[in-house]
Amino acid sequence: MVMLNFTYHAPTKVFFGKDSHKQIGEIIKGYGFRKIMMQYGKGSIKQNGLYDDVMASLNEHGIEVVECGGVSPNPNLEFVHEAVAIAKREQVEMILAVGGGSVLDSCKYTAAGAKYDGDVWDFPTRKAVLADALPVGCILTIAAAGSEMSASAVVTNEAECQKRGFGSDLNRCLFAVCNPELTYTVSPYQTGCGIVDSMAHTMERYFIDCEPTPLTDRLAESVLHSLVDAGRVLMEDPRDYEARATAMWGSSLAHNGLTGCGRGDFLAVHQLEHAISGEYPAVAHGAGLAVLFPAWAKFCYHRNVPRFAQFARRVWDITEPDDEKAALCGIEAMADFFKSLGMPSTLREFGIAEEKIPRLCDLCTNNGTRVIPSYIPMDYDAVKQIFESCY
Amino acid sequence: MVMLNFTYHAPTKVFFGKDSHKQIGEIIKGYGFRKIMMQYGKGSIKQNGLYDDVMASLNEHGIEVVECGGVSPNPNLEFVHEAVAIAKREQVEMILAVGGGSVLDSCKYTAAGAKYDGDVWDFPTRKAVLADALPVGCILTIAAAGSEMSASAVVTNEAECQKRGFGSDLNRCLFAVCNPELTYTVSPYQTGCGIVDSMAHTMERYFIDCEPTPLTDRLAESVLHSLVDAGRVLMEDPRDYEARATAMWGSSLAHNGLTGCGRGDFLAVHQLEHAISGEYPAVAHGAGLAVLFPAWAKFCYHRNVPRFAQFARRVWDITEPDDEKAALCGIEAMADFFKSLGMPSTLREFGIAEEKIPRLCDLCTNNGTRVIPSYIPMDYDAVKQIFESCY
Repeated sequence: MVMLNFTYHAPTKVFFGKDSHKQIGEIIKGYGFRKIMMQYGKGSIKQNGLYDDVMASLNEHGIEVVECGGVSPNPNLEFVHEAVAIAKREQVEMILAVGGGSVLDSCKYTAAGAKYDGDVWDFPTRKAVLADALPVGCILTIAAAGSEMSASAVVTNEAECQKRGFGSDLNRCLFAVCNPELTYTVSPYQTGCGIVDSMAHTMERYFIDCEPTPLTDRLAESVLHSLVDAGRVLMEDPRDYEARATAMWGSSLAHNGLTGCGRGDFLAVHQLEHAISGEYPAVAHGAGLAVLFPAWAKFCYHRNVPRFAQFARRVWDITEPDDEKAALCGIEAMADFFKSLGMPSTLREFGIAEEKIPRLCDLCTNNGTRVIPSYIPMDYDAVKQIFESCY
Repeated sequence: MVMLNFTYHAPTKVFFGKDSHKQIGEIIKGYGFRKIMMQYGKGSIKQNGLYDDVMASLNEHGIEVVECGGVSPNPNLEFVHEAVAIAKREQVEMILAVGGGSVLDSCKYTAAGAKYDGDVWDFPTRKAVLADALPVGCILTIAAAGSEMSASAVVTNEAECQKRGFGSDLNRCLFAVCNPELTYTVSPYQTGCGIVDSMAHTMERYFIDCEPTPLTDRLAESVLHSLVDAGRVLMEDPRDYEARATAMWGSSLAHNGLTGCGRGDFLAVHQLEHAISGEYPAVAHGAGLAVLFPAWAKFCYHRNVPRFAQFARRVWDITEPDDEKAALCGIEAMADFFKSLGMPSTLREFGIAEEKIPRLCDLCTNNGTRVIPSYIPMDYDAVKQIFESCY
């Protein structure tokens, strides 16, 4: 057995660094677009000056802008439906996201819907395969979801209480403008959620049950170690440029495919988390992952002790020579680090009632009919055991 | 001071793994090309079955092929001129390279020339800026140059005894088919040259004199450590799939921009080496770098001891606590490793006469008028000192 064959394709052009967002008009004009839709969130970009900077650059380069503000965290399908209608009516040529993963994912669904006659919910529910989409570009304001380079897009269908995603190369951004300074004002809690989310994207691939991949392993460990270092600095100094830059570039590399080469990109623990933040939209995705990842690791580490020992030594600098002990120390170090980022460590802290656990298990496993691949395949009972262990 | 702003753009789609080359017809048809030029080297692909596999797949998918075999190591301008004329006359839609860095670079120049009315030598000599080029794809047979994902292309002008390169996003391959098994038959010497070349692409960026870049540093160290591990295995077992895969994917990542993010991509030691293999085309580029890199490092490590100490500890697992001693141990470890790959350690071993050193210095420094940026800027005298130290 050898490492898996893979296809690697991360075509997004990244403009990274100080003041990079001020080039946005020039960048878009360079691609030849004249009329765009611009989506953003609840308006913080109007308070911090970003909106003005962006509009000034777009106006300077004669780009016509159809605005579509008000994207919510965990973007919802209803908003996307409205945006698709506007994009079609206005015949915009591309969609610009100014925001974080939620705004980006809303834009990706809008871009898909603008070139599709049916309901975009058909894509995550596998009723249709995405065949065409408008180009999407972004100005990133939160380092977390990795959506700026990833092939995935997640949306919440509030009517059905379901959060679902799908992957397609057409979901990859044409370009991403990443200025770490734009994240200086992200709250410590959201910064922590972002670090956890980026780490989870890397760890999910790192812990896929497959043959060893020495180079991919080391790259993943590099991303993780750097994110840990950056997270520690940012809890002390939210305006440390290098740490913000590491968190931002790390979020992109964690989810653009690089850390999964030869391993695959199935995100098992995300399946558990989507049930939680789908059912409880107030739960931040990263916070959900911070609770679930250590619980998942304790549940199944014993099926691959050398792997968890390597993780402990290379990411957490654990020097314990015994593999079993090292593996457990690594999981503890991860849990402690997440706590140091201000993350919760139990589902209870989200205000979820214990009797709701069966409902969450049903959501993860499609009423017990689906088994999620992992070191220990996760059926209804396994998921229940994990949820109870971190309640 | 903070890390440099950067643009990252590595759009090449990589099809990596066993038997991947047998998809070539399907891949090319998927892009919609019907008539292509295929370049290859001196015919080894006809002996090992690769040519037959490729033609079978192309024929099966109805791709018309204009063959252009006979590319030499250190591809020369004269060959490119002929290929450009053929590409124009036959109106091919893309260029397929089946080979290593030399074939690839020949194809890149051909692709540039096919869309240009002047002489392609205008691009490396900065008389013209590349504005359009045919798409290039490749089936890689040697892990070394990184040309499969890089923006650079190097060619030798034999009439002027000059080896010159230039960078452009238009030089980036549309796709790269990378099957590590195709490199099983690469000789130990050429395998060694390839490992050195890939490491040099990473080390050049790692040792650019700029602010620290924690994440990029760790990624570079990962690539280097993995290449060292793979090189050691391959000297024992040239058919180790994992090691061949690491060498191959490592060569791509070493030169696609990833290891230079926030640092830049100026290749100082390459400037010295191009003078040597430009003047002595029998010298393998990797072998030249194996001689020069330790000599360059000894020449200037004292200007950034902590950097070389970090390199020693993270890449070579040196545990020496003193930075100065660690730095020197790391350079020694690198030199010893290159020797273990069967590489020469002196210029003398190439059969270069000592009295030719001034001529080489002239070539590097444009007759003493040019200073190559480095920890110690390299003028004529500095270059002479380095060449003499490794003669």
